[in-house]
Amino acid sequence: MSIVLYDLKGREGLRYSPYCWRIRYALAHKGLEIENVAVGFTEKEKVAFSGQPLVPVIVDKNKGGNVVFDSWQIANYLDDTYPEKPLFGSAAARGAARFINNWIGTNFFPQVGPMIIADLFQRVRDQDRAYFRESREKRYSNVLEKLQAGREQRLPAFRASLEPLRMLVKEQEFVCGQTPAYADYILFGSFQWPANASDFELLAEDDPIYVWRKRMAGLYDGLAQRAKFGPTD
Amino acid sequence: MSIVLYDLKGREGLRYSPYCWRIRYALAHKGLEIENVAVGFTEKEKVAFSGQPLVPVIVDKNKGGNVVFDSWQIANYLDDTYPEKPLFGSAAARGAARFINNWIGTNFFPQVGPMIIADLFQRVRDQDRAYFRESREKRYSNVLEKLQAGREQRLPAFRASLEPLRMLVKEQEFVCGQTPAYADYILFGSFQWPANASDFELLAEDDPIYVWRKRMAGLYDGLAQRAKFGPTD
Repeated sequence: MSIVLYDLKGREGLRYSPYCWRIRYALAHKGLEIENVAVGFTEKEKVAFSGQPLVPVIVDKNKGGNVVFDSWQIANYLDDTYPEKPLFGSAAARGAARFINNWIGTNFFPQVGPMIIADLFQRVRDQDRAYFRESREKRYSNVLEKLQAGREQRLPAFRASLEPLRMLVKEQEFVCGQTPAYADYILFGSFQWPANASDFELLAEDDPIYVWRKRMAGLYDGLAQRAKFGPTD
Repeated sequence: MSIVLYDLKGREGLRYSPYCWRIRYALAHKGLEIENVAVGFTEKEKVAFSGQPLVPVIVDKNKGGNVVFDSWQIANYLDDTYPEKPLFGSAAARGAARFINNWIGTNFFPQVGPMIIADLFQRVRDQDRAYFRESREKRYSNVLEKLQAGREQRLPAFRASLEPLRMLVKEQEFVCGQTPAYADYILFGSFQWPANASDFELLAEDDPIYVWRKRMAGLYDGLAQRAKFGPTD
């Protein structure tokens, strides 16, 4: 039996959803078998059974088909249902990971989005492009190409804002210590978004975060590379 | 036997060091008996035995007089030496708390300092004032009163930057879950700095962080109030 992960797909099955990557890593961490189902931006009917339109969604076939959506809720469900190899390990870890989750949402994404959004558009499936452009240009109140213009000038401030993470991975192998856990997956999954949606490199090669990101990409037999392209339907 | 905490003092024994407050709370959390020794800004000789000039420093009389300095090192020492009632609870919790520690250092203090520094100067002991003004004006490359001027205009950006914490304490009682642990003490200790150094209120009363801060202040029989003024020598 396995866990079905409804996962966002781009052109040629490219995987760039930061939230789906978090869960991909969480499932690998737990050693749970997965079945990957690809969902395009305009195929929301595929996850309608979950009562909401967004991925990731999981269906846990091991447990009578439990349906869970929202990456944070899924991580919590997995840790509560499969307590071996904890993603958190304590209530304190869960709370602090939630802080990091919030930090990514309020600091990382608002800066990264406008630096890669027009590149990302090029990797969206043809049939999803009109939807993608319209919904994102409405969200950002700007044209995708204009949003992205001048990104080189914004890079130093973005890199500076990553200092809390940089200080940490300068000191230790993983955010969670000597072995990775969910806080690492939150952060790495988020970096997978720009990494797979764009060729624009956000990090300098001598940045400790760059080194950590590479270490993360190598986990689980190079999952980041292995799962970069997934099923297309 | 007890643990001696070398603690920064201001006028009339006022305690405003954010790093000392973290340890004050960590010691209360562990239920360890403490002996509080007051150190003024210009009394660095009092902690010279530790091989460096900054507080907090602890001397653990229960363990042959072990000397530890730096709040993060002290928290780790306490949790490793007295594992009951964990401050972290897992390596993942320790790592994520370290992230929060770094976030405070790179985001909170650089914004808060210039909003309270001239008020703080008024609460520094007379004999420490020349040292305080000179060292801080050198650090900030500006006059204390000029640094603080216009702080009302900077308040909205500061409050917005607290969003990762706000989202969290809107959802749960403490950062660490249903009971507080070290990540709460890092954050609360940091808020004790402006709270005790200045009458300028950084938070709106309807801010979930304001409510959490009040909850934190009430812990350990109202430790924040009880220990606001400590020994003067």
